[in-house]
Parts: sequence; structure tokens; C-alpha cells
Amino acid sequence: MTVKRKTLKPWGGRFAQATDPGVEAYTASIQFDRRLYKYDIAGSVAHARMLAKCGLLTKAEADKIVAGLEEIGGEIERGEFRFDPSLEDIHMAIEARLIEKVGEAGAKLHTGRSRNDQVALDLRLYLRDEIGEVRRLAVGLEQALIAQAEAHLDLIMPGYTHMQRAQPVLLAHHLMAYVEMLERDRARLHDALRRVDVLPLGSGALAGVGLPIDRRFVAKELRFRALSANSLDAVSDRDFVIEPLFAFALLMTHLSRLAEEIVLWASAEFGFIELPDAFATGSSMMPQKKNPDVAELARGKTGRTFGALVALLTIVKGLPLSYNRDLQEDKEPLFDSADSVKATLLVMASLVSRLTFCGDRMRQAAEDGFLNATDLADYLVRKGMPFRQTHEMVGLLVRRALARRCRLEELSLDELQAASPLFERDVFAYITLEACIKRRTAIGGTATGAVKKAIKAAKVKLRSR
Amino acid sequence: MTVKRKTLKPWGGRFAQATDPGVEAYTASIQFDRRLYKYDIAGSVAHARMLAKCGLLTKAEADKIVAGLEEIGGEIERGEFRFDPSLEDIHMAIEARLIEKVGEAGAKLHTGRSRNDQVALDLRLYLRDEIGEVRRLAVGLEQALIAQAEAHLDLIMPGYTHMQRAQPVLLAHHLMAYVEMLERDRARLHDALRRVDVLPLGSGALAGVGLPIDRRFVAKELRFRALSANSLDAVSDRDFVIEPLFAFALLMTHLSRLAEEIVLWASAEFGFIELPDAFATGSSMMPQKKNPDVAELARGKTGRTFGALVALLTIVKGLPLSYNRDLQEDKEPLFDSADSVKATLLVMASLVSRLTFCGDRMRQAAEDGFLNATDLADYLVRKGMPFRQTHEMVGLLVRRALARRCRLEELSLDELQAASPLFERDVFAYITLEACIKRRTAIGGTATGAVKKAIKAAKVKLRSR
Amino acid sequence: MTVKRKTLKPWGGRFAQATDPGVEAYTASIQFDRRLYKYDIAGSVAHARMLAKCGLLTKAEADKIVAGLEEIGGEIERGEFRFDPSLEDIHMAIEARLIEKVGEAGAKLHTGRSRNDQVALDLRLYLRDEIGEVRRLAVGLEQALIAQAEAHLDLIMPGYTHMQRAQPVLLAHHLMAYVEMLERDRARLHDALRRVDVLPLGSGALAGVGLPIDRRFVAKELRFRALSANSLDAVSDRDFVIEPLFAFALLMTHLSRLAEEIVLWASAEFGFIELPDAFATGSSMMPQKKNPDVAELARGKTGRTFGALVALLTIVKGLPLSYNRDLQEDKEPLFDSADSVKATLLVMASLVSRLTFCGDRMRQAAEDGFLNATDLADYLVRKGMPFRQTHEMVGLLVRRALARRCRLEELSLDELQAASPLFERDVFAYITLEACIKRRTAIGGTATGAVKKAIKAAKVKLRSR
Amino acid sequence: MTVKRKTLKPWGGRFAQATDPGVEAYTASIQFDRRLYKYDIAGSVAHARMLAKCGLLTKAEADKIVAGLEEIGGEIERGEFRFDPSLEDIHMAIEARLIEKVGEAGAKLHTGRSRNDQVALDLRLYLRDEIGEVRRLAVGLEQALIAQAEAHLDLIMPGYTHMQRAQPVLLAHHLMAYVEMLERDRARLHDALRRVDVLPLGSGALAGVGLPIDRRFVAKELRFRALSANSLDAVSDRDFVIEPLFAFALLMTHLSRLAEEIVLWASAEFGFIELPDAFATGSSMMPQKKNPDVAELARGKTGRTFGALVALLTIVKGLPLSYNRDLQEDKEPLFDSADSVKATLLVMASLVSRLTFCGDRMRQAAEDGFLNATDLADYLVRKGMPFRQTHEMVGLLVRRALARRCRLEELSLDELQAASPLFERDVFAYITLEACIKRRTAIGGTATGAVKKAIKAAKVKLRSR
Repeated sequence: MTVKRKTLKPWGGRFAQATDPGVEAYTASIQFDRRLYKYDIAGSVAHARMLAKCGLLTKAEADKIVAGLEEIGGEIERGEFRFDPSLEDIHMAIEARLIEKVGEAGAKLHTGRSRNDQVALDLRLYLRDEIGEVRRLAVGLEQALIAQAEAHLDLIMPGYTHMQRAQPVLLAHHLMAYVEMLERDRARLHDALRRVDVLPLGSGALAGVGLPIDRRFVAKELRFRALSANSLDAVSDRDFVIEPLFAFALLMTHLSRLAEEIVLWASAEFGFIELPDAFATGSSMMPQKKNPDVAELARGKTGRTFGALVALLTIVKGLPLSYNRDLQEDKEPLFDSADSVKATLLVMASLVSRLTFCGDRMRQAAEDGFLNATDLADYLVRKGMPFRQTHEMVGLLVRRALARRCRLEELSLDELQAASPLFERDVFAYITLEACIKRRTAIGGTATGAVKKAIKAAKVKLRSR
Repeated sequence: MTVKRKTLKPWGGRFAQATDPGVEAYTASIQFDRRLYKYDIAGSVAHARMLAKCGLLTKAEADKIVAGLEEIGGEIERGEFRFDPSLEDIHMAIEARLIEKVGEAGAKLHTGRSRNDQVALDLRLYLRDEIGEVRRLAVGLEQALIAQAEAHLDLIMPGYTHMQRAQPVLLAHHLMAYVEMLERDRARLHDALRRVDVLPLGSGALAGVGLPIDRRFVAKELRFRALSANSLDAVSDRDFVIEPLFAFALLMTHLSRLAEEIVLWASAEFGFIELPDAFATGSSMMPQKKNPDVAELARGKTGRTFGALVALLTIVKGLPLSYNRDLQEDKEPLFDSADSVKATLLVMASLVSRLTFCGDRMRQAAEDGFLNATDLADYLVRKGMPFRQTHEMVGLLVRRALARRCRLEELSLDELQAASPLFERDVFAYITLEACIKRRTAIGGTATGAVKKAIKAAKVKLRSR
Repeated sequence: MTVKRKTLKPWGGRFAQATDPGVEAYTASIQFDRRLYKYDIAGSVAHARMLAKCGLLTKAEADKIVAGLEEIGGEIERGEFRFDPSLEDIHMAIEARLIEKVGEAGAKLHTGRSRNDQVALDLRLYLRDEIGEVRRLAVGLEQALIAQAEAHLDLIMPGYTHMQRAQPVLLAHHLMAYVEMLERDRARLHDALRRVDVLPLGSGALAGVGLPIDRRFVAKELRFRALSANSLDAVSDRDFVIEPLFAFALLMTHLSRLAEEIVLWASAEFGFIELPDAFATGSSMMPQKKNPDVAELARGKTGRTFGALVALLTIVKGLPLSYNRDLQEDKEPLFDSADSVKATLLVMASLVSRLTFCGDRMRQAAEDGFLNATDLADYLVRKGMPFRQTHEMVGLLVRRALARRCRLEELSLDELQAASPLFERDVFAYITLEACIKRRTAIGGTATGAVKKAIKAAKVKLRSR
Repeated sequence: MTVKRKTLKPWGGRFAQATDPGVEAYTASIQFDRRLYKYDIAGSVAHARMLAKCGLLTKAEADKIVAGLEEIGGEIERGEFRFDPSLEDIHMAIEARLIEKVGEAGAKLHTGRSRNDQVALDLRLYLRDEIGEVRRLAVGLEQALIAQAEAHLDLIMPGYTHMQRAQPVLLAHHLMAYVEMLERDRARLHDALRRVDVLPLGSGALAGVGLPIDRRFVAKELRFRALSANSLDAVSDRDFVIEPLFAFALLMTHLSRLAEEIVLWASAEFGFIELPDAFATGSSMMPQKKNPDVAELARGKTGRTFGALVALLTIVKGLPLSYNRDLQEDKEPLFDSADSVKATLLVMASLVSRLTFCGDRMRQAAEDGFLNATDLADYLVRKGMPFRQTHEMVGLLVRRALARRCRLEELSLDELQAASPLFERDVFAYITLEACIKRRTAIGGTATGAVKKAIKAAKVKLRSR
């Protein structure tokens, strides 16, 4: 029986008809998975070397394959490679070209391997790089936030709850809240990476490989931390995609919160920051506009990363073992989410480092709104009055000050003493903005010393990343 | 004061710095909104004609603009147009090219218009076409289902609940269930279209237009059913995107159910259908495989359309009025979802029309599993026994048959009469598969006559679409 | 064979073991579907009457059943009914109690019916009511918005894009934007209702009913617009749940936008509204706080309705026909979403009608920020200068005014004329806030007359609801 | 000034009006957060002890408070506590009762504390317990899977890809794939726990506390691993809720896959398992039905956990710092998701341990479908033929066998040799099911030895949990 290849398909033997062109178009992934080419090549190089080590290829065959794959890598990088949709995917495109180049040796590359474990490998290699890159970019944003915090340790602003002015805080303290969030994001990505960094190759199509292969050798070549422990799981699991997608979505949620504040602060109503012209855009109709588009798009792109997460969870939910073609739909949401998070981290780092803070507006806002009311209540607590009573009493004093359109510190000592004889002259010094800030020295508080310590600790963490 | 354009930006006047290249890259949409070019041109043509009608352009200027726009359309179609990312979006790219071509007249085109109402217009025009196309493609799939139903009116299969064989049904009845779903999808899209088919142009940036324009004229030119009634709403509303995204997601849910059944039926365990080779693909490793990839991908792509819907809802949720740049993120999810649904409808219609049904396997499956148990109970109901007792009694007969590894109709009349003297010889004729089918004549039932009526009604609806 | 009921289960006959108590707890739905009791009873009454009409019950039996069901309804309303989890669901609980009450007649009620079509019926009856109620509550909020719009036709505020002041608009125009959104929501619910208002009863478990029933009679009794046309579809379709869930989610998205604005406007930075004390809450720690909790919770509850939508789409996606128990999970998300939307509409209507608008703060905000820049450009357009040039020139004038810290109208005529000789003395009258508002007369614009027309049109629509 | 409490509200002082009852109902959380009572009490006990240690309470006051709180705990447990919706939440309800009980000392408890840090504390304590519980329940399911794997080490079944039979695997290998998934879930929960196990108390409302408190003391009392490092972040972060919600959703995705297989295997078509009667339910209409409801509901509840995740991501996205009332909506989705995952793990563990596997059906299925085709190709690979050729050739042999309706091993040696002279008599031994299984010895493969090792390794991990 002479084997003649009717088609380029690697699975043509059993089929009597050629694939319908509509089906070919619908099922092809090469238009997006070509992006994985360098991981596919790296994986094939390691696989070929292992086959040679195990006697499934000769040394000469493996060398030809490796050289051929490297040439193909160059062709793709130089834009000379022709991506043919009838080749389905990047794996088949590279293999077909390899066979074209090196002949029979190339036809041996797929020995002991399936696309199922191959694609899992490529995607894990991609994610390993990508998670590293996202972590690095997160560091960049953290550094920008820390630099601004350090440069403005003296600025007092209103801290908000419910979008209402609540208590005075340092701008630096506010900015450091985002560093905390990003540190958690980096930790989450680090945890996810440990589950990504697992070699699936050697799982075959689903049941493992029936030839004498050496998985540890491949793992070592590709620097994987561990080997997958169950072949069925290895080819059908997409946890390693979903978990990073989640980590990206949560990271973007944090960027969206930061972006929301930049939008608010850049509004005329807040006026807390000035955007550089280079980081704003105008209107096609309204000549005066200067819009914080970057921050708005960061918020918007967050929705996209939620969508990608939902898509993948939905796709995997309820699939029986093992590989099902539904899983091919994992790549585009993943690429889209990773690209969104990388671009947003990069541009937000630039934006944050270029913000001009309007200290006067911030301080002025902190002076209005009775932000020292809690401290006034605490003053009485220190004199022995139960907190619930001090709270009630200060609430009434606030009503009085509202009616009089004055600040709490503008009530006279007589008025205060009429409310409670516990008030003494020192109360006025007790409730200045500076005093309110100064006394919040407990870990995590907004006192300057506490914030300086937080900055120092954050820098240590970033250095040891 | 001489106005010299430092940049290509249409909003440069107020800005002292050029846009940061990173920001330019992050905010540009031209790489995806170029797809809207023909709608942008159609909108601009109508707008220019209106401006001329209202005296805001001369007839000659309008003619130059229209001619220029048409040339640009040709350039884009022929792939000769250079899309420069620094031009931000398709609107600005076309306008800049127009000014290049026709000079001062081109610089007048944006009179009484903002990108905010322009982009809403383009997207509505796109959606109007796209919804029409999806509706047409849904018809195609319905026709394929109906044709298969008509061609196989004699095939009996098990109807399932809980994936357990339940009662016999006609294959045709089963297929027609999907026609019902698709009819609802088409109705939903039709309803959505009424809310899409509303002209936003003339809303300006947000407040309406301060020049004497004629919105009705534009609506007529572009054949819009209605005019938007509030300018703030018109530029910031994305209901008209979200509602189709939902309709697409629900339609895909139906296709995913159909796909699930195709996957099941193509399995060796069911063996209800044979896929044509042209609609299946093989394995890179396992020479015997023939996989229902099309159906699997249809299931997978459903997740994607859920993601797009979630993305858009998230993006819009909580935005204050009116336009915010977050909304630029509406396009890619929309395009992706629309493309997914169109491709899936198309390929599923082909696939359905090419399926071979294995009537023997179906019938054999319908004969096992006591699918006539309900009818056996009904037999006694007709003789006056309360249904709850007949149900209980038939349950016990099923246990007996299970123990004996026989079918209900293989129990002897004596045995039946021992259970209840109401059983008579006619019971055996009462519980054949054909009899079970035949008696379900009420509207929506699986009797052949009822199914024929349903097919006829569906065809009438499709003709009047 | 004597039938003795070992258990309360309506399906016990075939089973040799009692249900595991853990399974009973896991599968029971009575703790939440009891809420459907009145719909279940109404459906059973109609079903019983139909059975009598068709000769499947005697008149006397039907009367006993109907009387028994009505008594049970009373027992439930008075809190006297014992809901036993071992009875699985509300349908079985009522049937078991009915048999207890009326004996053999009760045991005949389930003739020609399955829980599959029964639960679909109950849920459709519930939704028919609930959609009506949501539509009514939406009207209430629209009326509150319209009343505030009418009461404040003279208030000018800044319209925003990108959270930056953009052009002056009437507060009334801004409020009416939400009326537009709610009108679309009501229309969507109306459309959804048409697909909800379809009788599924008579579909049996999946294949239709093998007894001579009269579905049209039941439809008439229960006032359904139409009959389901395919029994498999009727018991397994949950479009009629998902579509309202979507309509609720989108409605809530609109409420979330309104809530976002209330939160912003109530902030010290905006100061556009004053919340009544009765609609704000305080802080347990900070005595001065007055927080817009209602609006914040409205925003938060929106997330919940998204979750419910995602849950249902996920549940249905990929299920083969026909009924699968996964569908039992439809109820809690639906109840939760409906409750959220009803409560939020109700409280938002109260809140909106109780808001105090701070006209001075709004006007003051509208005067800053060059909101008349577009009109200044339009002024030159009217004199013949191409819009792109006027836009650029006004941009430069804005820069000059920014540098001088003055408004555009505070630039001298000389300065303006130095920029362009087209400027004349009438320019100052052209760019007052009032003039800017006044000239936006096109449909949907913010001119007072246009807004009045919009209010009138909205009232007409609400009356004809 | 005498302080008289008009209302029970802890923040009444500043307010002139009582809260609107509709607002009270809308904003109250006590109907669901009462569930946190024991964590609230534990947190208050630790807080009171710290206040005493720091001199903000006397020892006697702290003792009274602690005793009072313990009494209240007892009242709640015994169902004697009256939950009054006007008290808003569990925190206020307990505090009000405490003041009732112990007077002034109780009014001092809220010193140096806000509900913002208190609720974050309660929720973290709850989650710490809940994550532990979910991890324990996951172990239970893993043990059930391992026990079944060990008990059936000899059963061969078809491994599937694309729902098509692919290669033979051990049932034990298949079951162990789920153990792998659950191990990742447990690891993810463990990682999440490290970020949950952080003390937020001492962050005050947002800015830290202005009194000399000792956060480390509280952390030690409550056994927290770490202290939150930024007060703004501590009160507004909900990562610690979202990350477990994600881990639950992904865990449920795995249970949904397992459930899908149970549903498939329990079908007549597969017939791989027999469900115990106690774990199945019947039909109200069809007497013969025995349905795998537990597995179906497990699949369904997965959708619910996706919804909860989407809800929370949506709620937090775009919120400015710090606490916003939207966050109150975190609890119900969290409780619902945690309850779903716990109930599902519990019932699935019982179900798995009670499954009866039908080894004959499995083996028979493995014998059909050319599952040894890959090994036939490998046979030739071992003889030196390039894999791509062997694949093609075996594909053609499969076609021949299909045409002849025979198995590959039923082709004669002559026929095989006609295809390739490399075939020898030993080929038949090479492609028996047992041989195919036996040679997949690499780590993660389905060879019995490899599976035994995997079982052993899993047991070691579970012991060291």
C-alpha cells in the first residue's frame, strides 16, 4: 500500500472527503495561534532532543529538525512565512514547513506527541512569559505610585467614604493603598505561575505515550518546575488559563479604581490633579475640552477582562474529559486580556508619574466638611466619656456648625463647654488637620511616620521581587 | 492670529504638547473601527446633504464633499487607503483625507456634528445591517432543520429528560424544537432592531446642535424609523449595542444546545447520526479519529458571546452622563460577538443539512427503557384509576420488568391483570411506540399530524419574514 | 397487586430504596419555590376544570379539587401550611395536601400533566405578574423624574463628557435622559412579556400528552396570549426567564448610572443636590457623615442582577433537550433579580422626588470651564469660516483665557478681532449660557422648548401605558 | 447639652429627620449578615480586651463587655435574640443589646473602631473558617475518588477526546484526573487563605485610629497571620472575597465536569454506571424514570457561583476609595457561593462513593472504535517508519476495517503486510487493550503502575494536608 497524501491535513488517512472550505475556515486557528510560534518551536526543539536521547530519532535527524525549526523561526520573524489557513494551526503549519525543508526527519517529529499536549505546552510557555511580563509592569506602576507618594509626603487631602469627605489623610497614604492592591496582584500571579509552570508534554492525546520517552529531560530543557501527573487532566485542564485570566481581571479592577479616581480628581469639581497635555485628548467639536481618556479606557478595558474570564469559565464548565475542541476558544480571550492588562499597566505608570497634584485644592477640601469630627469625639473619649455619647454629642455640634455655616474649630470654647464641661482650651490644637493625621500612628494609619514605613517596606518588597 | 496646525489632531488648538506616543497607541481605535468605514461615509454623505439643504454648506461644497467621500470609499475598498494610528479613529482618518482631497469644503464637514453622535450613528448603521444578516442566517438554519424534519417524518427516537430515555418522539419533533427557539431569537432581534433603528445624529457632543440643522432630513436619507429624543441619552446610551449582544448570546445558547446534541449523537454510544467526512476533522496522533469539531467550536464560541455581553454591561454600569471614553470599548466585543454568531449559524446550517440520521439506532434506543410506561399508566387512567395510583403501579411493573430484563410489553396479560384487573388484551396495542406517538395530538405534541402542522406553520412564518 | 405508598414521593413505585437524606436536602426546592404557591394553585384549578370539561374528571371531582386547592391557598396565606422538605417542591407539597384533604379526586389531579410543564407554567404566571409590577414601578420613577424636570425648567447646569464640563444643559434635559432609558426598558419588558405570555401546560413531561386534553381551554382560563408550539421546547426552554433577567439587568444599569450621578452630585465637590436626612445614613464612627447609601446600594445591586443573568445563561448553555434538573436553579437568581429591581425602582422614585437641587452651585459650575467654546466656534461658522478652523482658533483662545485665568466672554473684542476679523460685538450676546441653551432647538436638544416638548411626549406615553 | 437618643441609630446626632422606612428596609443587612454573629462577637471580645490593655477601658469594663457579648452569643444560638431591621446590621444589633445589658461600658465598645473595619474583620473570620471547611470537604471527595480508583484498578474504559472514543485508559486513571483538579483547587484556596488571613481591625473608618491602640495584640488574640498595611485599602478592599469566590467557581467547574460525566455514564447509551436508588429521583409523570438529579444540580449550581463572581467583580470595579456602601452587596453572593460549593462537595462525595461501575460495558466500549490505532502506528514507528507515514497508513487501514465492519486486530497479517512489510506476527500482541495500557508508563500515563504511583502520591498529599 503506497501512502499518498491527498491533502496537507496531518490526519487525512481515514477520510474519504476533503474538508469543507466553510468548515476549514470555521475551525482554523492559525490566524491567532501563530502568535505562539516561538513557543511551538522551543517545544519542538526540546521534544526532538528528547526523542534523540531516547533513541526514537538519530542524532543526525534531531540536528536536522532543530536546524530546520530555527530556520523557520527566522522566516516567521522576518515575515517570510506563508500562513495557510488550510493548515489549521501554527503547529501543523510549522510541521508542514519542516517536512518541506528536511524531509523524512521532519515527518518523525510528531512521534510520541499529540497536538493536545503540544498546544497545552505552547500556551503554558506563553503564559509563563506573559505572567512574568505583567508582574514586571505592575512593579513599574508601583514604582510610579511610590515615587509620587515620596515626593508629596506633605500633602493632606480629604479621605472619602461614600464619596463624602470623611477624615484627613496624606495623599501619599492614598497612593500607597494602590501599591498594596498591586502587591496582592503580584502575589496572586506568582501563585498562579506555580500552577502554570508544569510540563504537559508527554501526555499524548489523552492517555500518555506508548513509546519510551523521557518527560523529565523535556522538563529540564524547558525549565519547568514540575511534570503534569495525569495525562487526561493535562490535555483537558484549562485552569492554567483561567486562573491568570482571573488574576488579570482583578488587577484590572484595581486599575479601574485608580482610573476612576484620576477621572474624578481631574474634574473641575475636584481639581486635585492636572493632567499633562500629552496624556489627555480633546474633542472633535468642543474646542475647550481636555479629557482623561487614558483613565477612562483603563476603566473600559476592565470590562473586557471580565468578559474573557466569563468566556473561559463558561467554555470549560460541564465538558466531559478529556480534550474537546471547545478549548480552542481559550486563546483569543487570553491574548486579549493579557494585552489589555499589559497596555494598561504601561500607560498608567506613565500617567501616574506625570500627574501634577494641586496641593492647595486638596488641603482646602480637607478643611471643609468637619473631617475632624471623629477626633473631636475621640477627645472626649480620652476624657472618659463613652464613645457612643461623644459621637452623638459631636453629631449635634456638627448640626450647629452647619446651621452657623462655620467649622467645628470655629465654635467657641464656651459653646463647646455648654455641650460638655470636659472640653478645654487644648481641644483646638487637638483637632487641627495636622494633629488628626499625626496621631494615626498605628500600623496602616495615615500618620507621616507610618506612611514612611509603608513606603520603605514596599521598596524592600519590590527590590526582592 | 494665524491658525497653523501643529498636528493632525482635530482638537489640537487648546493643547501645548503633542500627544504622548504611548497614549496615542493606547487610545487609538482605528485598527478596529476602520471596519465601520462605509457607514461613516454614508453618514457623512447624508450629513453634508443636510448641511447644504440648511444653508450651512453651498451646494457645490456638498457635492465636492460627497464626491470626495465616495472616492475615499473606493480607496479603502481597494486597499489603497493608509490608516495612520495618529489619526485616532476612522472618523478622523476619513475627514483628514477628505480635507487633503477637497480642501476647505472638507474642513466644513464636521459642522454641527461631534464624534459622539457620529460614532453612535455609525454603530447603529452597522448593527442595522448586522442584525438583518443574523436574522437571514437564522432563517437558513431553520430551513435546514425543517428540511431534515420533513425528510424524516417517520423516524422515532427516544425523547430524553435528565439525559435518560423518557418517551418516544419523532426526530422531526425534536428538530422542530430548535426552530421554535430560533423563531424567538428572530423575534428578539426584530424587537431590538426597532430600538437600534433610531437616528442619533444631530445630538452634537451632548447638548444638541447650536446651528439650524434638519434631523428629519438626515433620518429620511438614511432611512431611520425614528429620531433620538434626548441628546444626552443619544450620545451616551449603549443599550442599542447591549441588547443585540444579549440576543446574540441567547441565540448562541440555542446553537450550543443543538451542538451538544450533535456531539452526543455522533458519539459511538448514541450513534444517532453520521457526520460527513467533510464536516469532521481528525487527530494529529490517533489515526482513527473523526471528530465533530464544528459542533464543539459552536459550543465554545457561545462562551465568547457571553463574555462580550458581560464586558459591555460592565463597561456601561455606573457611568455618569454623558459620553465617556470607556464606551470606545464597545466595538471589539460587538464585532467579535456578531462574527461568532454569523459564522456559527452559517456552518451549522450546512452541517445540519448534511447530517445522516441512523433511524435504526434511534428506533432501537426508543424500544429500550420503558418509554411507554406513561402510556401504560394512562391506559389505567382511562379505565378510571386515579393517576397517582396508576403511576405507582406502573413503577412497580417497571421494577418487575427490570428484574426480568424484559420490556413492559413482554409482561404477560396474566401478570398485568394480577396487578390490576383493569388490564385487558388491548393494552398491548395501546403501548406500541407508534401508538404512543400517535395519541399526542394536542398542539405542540409529537403526533405526526401535530408535527406536520408545526412544520407548515413554521414555513409560513419564514416566508413572511 | 395492592399499591401501598412507602413514601410521600410521587414517583416511588420504581424505587427500592428511600432517598438519601443528603440528596433530599440537596435536591429540594420547596424552601424557595413555595413562593410560587398561588400560581401553582391557579394553574391546578384551570387544569382540573379542563380535565372535567374533557371527561377525565367528573364535575364533582373537579369541584372537590378546586375547593381543596382554595382551602390550601388560604392555609398558606395564613401561615398554617407545613412545608415538608421531603416533599421536594411546592407542586408536590400542594398535591400531597390535596390528597390528604379530598382523597381519590386529589390523586387524579396530575392526570395529563408533568411537573415539567407545571413548573414552566408557574414560573410564567409569576413572571407575567412580576414584569407588570416592574413596569409599573418604572413608571413611578419616570413620573418622579418628570416632576422634578418640570419643577426646575429654569435650572442650567454643566453637561459633561468624560466627567469634564462640556456644554450647558438644562437640569430638566439631563433628568429626561433617564426617562428615555426607562422608556426603552419598559418597551423591552413589554416585548419580553409577549414571549413569556405563552401557555406551556399540555406539553406533559416532554412529548405532549397522551390523553384527550384541551389546551385552548386552559389558555383561556389563565388568559394566555398563545400556546407553546413544541412540547420538547416548552419544558426545556428558559428563554422566558433569561430575557426578563436581561431586561432587569439593563434597567438596573440605568439606575446605576442615575445612582452614580446622585452620589457625585451629593458630594461636597459637586454640591448639586441636598439629600433629605431621611434618605441618608450616618457613620458609626464619624459623627459628621451623611451618606448617599441608597444610591450606592442601587449601584451595588446592579452587580447582583448581572450575576443572575450570567448564572442562567451558563446553566442553560449546552444542555441537551429536553428538561434537565439543572433548570431548577433558575428560580433563585430570578427571584433575587426581580426583588432587587423592584426594591430599587421603588426607593429611587422616592429619593428622586425628595431631592433638593442647588441651582446656584449648578449655574456657577456651568459658568466656569468655557462651556460656550463650541458656540463661539459656531459663531464663526455662521460667518463662513470652516468649522475645523474655527475649532482650532477657539482652542487657541481657550489657551489664552486659561493663561489669563479669565472666561472667554472676558476676552476683549480687540483680542477676539486680532484672532479673526469676523468677530463683532454681537459675539458676547451669542455666547451667554442662556443663548447657548436657547439655540439647541432641534429635536432632542436642550433648548427649553425642546425639553418641554419632550416632557409632554413622555407624559402622553405614560398615560397610554 | 444633654444627649438624648431619638433613635436607635448609632449615628443619629447629626440628623434632624428619622430615616425613611423604605430606606431602612432597602439598606438593612441584618436579615443576612446576622449569620456573622459569632465572628462579630469574637472580634468585639478581642477588641474590648485590647482596649483594656491599652487603658481605653478599665479591666472591669472589658470584663462586663466580654461577659455581655458571650451572653448575647448564647441568646442568638438559642433563637432568643430579636433581630430588629431598624438596627440595620448585626454589628449594631449586638452593640445595642450590649448597651441594654451592661450600660455605659457597652457604649464604650466602639471606641477606636468603625463598622468599616469591623465588617471587614467579620467577613475575614467567616472566610477563614469557610475556606477551611471547603478544603476539608474537597478532601472528602478526593478520598471517595481515590477509593473508587483503588477498588477498580483493573477496569479498562475508552478514553475520549471530542466525545469520541480515543484510546483505552484505566477507569482509575480517569477518576484520578479529578483528584488532580481538586488538588489544584485546594492549593488555590490555600493561597487565597493567606491573603484572607490578615487583620483589618485598627483601620478605623478609613484613616487609621486616632487613639493609642495595639493592633498586634488583636491579631494575636484572633490568630491572624498578618496585619493590613494600609487603612484605606483595608476598609475598601474586597479582594479577599473575590479571590475565594473565584476559587469556588473554578472548583465548581471541576465538579460540573465530573457531574457531566456521571450524567453521561448513567445514560442508557453509555451504561457505565449504575446509580443507587437513594441517589436518584423519579418523575411525577413517567413511572419508569430514574434520574441523576444530584449531578444535574451540581452542574446547575456551578452557574450560580459564576454569577456570584461576576456580581462581586462588577460591584468593586470602578469604585473610588475608600469604603462605599455598594460593598454591602458582597455578602449574599459570597454566602450563596460558599453554601453551593459546600453542599455540592458533600453530596458528590457520597454519590461517588456509592457508584457501581459496569466494567463489562466499559470494556466492550473500549474494544470498539479502533482505540488501538495509535499503538498500531507506534508499532511501525518502532520499526523505523516516520510517524506521519504510519499515521496516514493506519488511517487507511481504519477505513478498510470500517468498510469491512471489523476491528484492526481482525485484519489478517497478509492484509497488514500488503500495507507495509514492516508488520510481523507480533503486531497482534502489540495492540491488545492490555498492551496499549501497559506501555503508557511515563509519569502521568495510564499504565497500571503509573496510576498506582499517582494514587500513592495523592494519598501522601492528603495525609499531609
